[in-house]
Amino acid sequence: MKIIGIDPGTTTTGIGIIEFLYGNCSLIFYDALHLNSRDSLHSRLKKIYDECMNCIKKYKPDEFAIETAFYGKNIQSTLKLGQARGVAIIAALNSNLNIAEYSPREIKKSVTGRGAASKEQVQYMVKSILSVKRTKITTDSSDAIAVALCHYYSLQNNLKRHATAKKENTWESFIEKNPEKILLRN
Amino acid sequence: MKIIGIDPGTTTTGIGIIEFLYGNCSLIFYDALHLNSRDSLHSRLKKIYDECMNCIKKYKPDEFAIETAFYGKNIQSTLKLGQARGVAIIAALNSNLNIAEYSPREIKKSVTGRGAASKEQVQYMVKSILSVKRTKITTDSSDAIAVALCHYYSLQNNLKRHATAKKENTWESFIEKNPEKILLRN
Repeated sequence: MKIIGIDPGTTTTGIGIIEFLYGNCSLIFYDALHLNSRDSLHSRLKKIYDECMNCIKKYKPDEFAIETAFYGKNIQSTLKLGQARGVAIIAALNSNLNIAEYSPREIKKSVTGRGAASKEQVQYMVKSILSVKRTKITTDSSDAIAVALCHYYSLQNNLKRHATAKKENTWESFIEKNPEKILLRN
Repeated sequence: MKIIGIDPGTTTTGIGIIEFLYGNCSLIFYDALHLNSRDSLHSRLKKIYDECMNCIKKYKPDEFAIETAFYGKNIQSTLKLGQARGVAIIAALNSNLNIAEYSPREIKKSVTGRGAASKEQVQYMVKSILSVKRTKITTDSSDAIAVALCHYYSLQNNLKRHATAKKENTWESFIEKNPEKILLRN
């Protein structure tokens, strides 16, 4: 299974693609799209859309995960961020991909164990998990890879929960829990 | 020349297309895309994109105009609005259309003469300008048509300014303004 993770922004948009095969995870692609602030916002939005589409066409991910917005910024940068997010989301929807969203806190927690981890800590853990400690990965890219990793862990947890719930609904588990209900024949 | 005007929003997105031919302006199409708040934001964004693309493919406008955001709202609705705007803008960019942006104040002023005009005043003037007084046009649609009208007036003004500037740069106008520079042969 391949997952594309996006950390959108009108200054830098991070992209990371990871693959999970037989329990092993590997880094397929990563990039930080640095957008020139002298370019018009429209041309930057087009670059984000085109880059997302190119990656989706080339690497054919099965899942798309994106970081939700950080609300602490001022209203004008929130509007810009919204446009960058809209553009990335529409690239996924135009490619028939489901979209999963995770807050920065959820992403950091799932990768480092701490919701308030620094970008460098996320970068270190991403490299460590994917066994690419010697590869140069900027924090912009590692943030995007972390989104993809977060989505993978979330999918795994859902699967585990589903399996546990299924196990709990069998007659065997019912008997185990309620031994007094068994009527033995004399 | 055909102009498509968009008034984006995640609850309602207004679309209006007008055509100018030999000095006459006519209303080609208008719609207010009402989006169900129970639908996910993603599916609403996809609907906005698809509707914009369908209109562009069907009516082949030459110009694309969009209302800039209103900053007075709270940060969460600004983020949503940003996403809706991003999606509409990318539909235009994917169709190789140039994008013009106008603030609500500019739009109202160009159509009604007053920057603080009400939606109903805009609606009345839009109907009056396009000679469709008996047609039912909601304020959501008339806002979008007003964006297209505003862009047309702006293009016209630019043309006029250009023509005046051109005229002012001729020898004739120079002589007219500076009669003392003429040296008559004796």
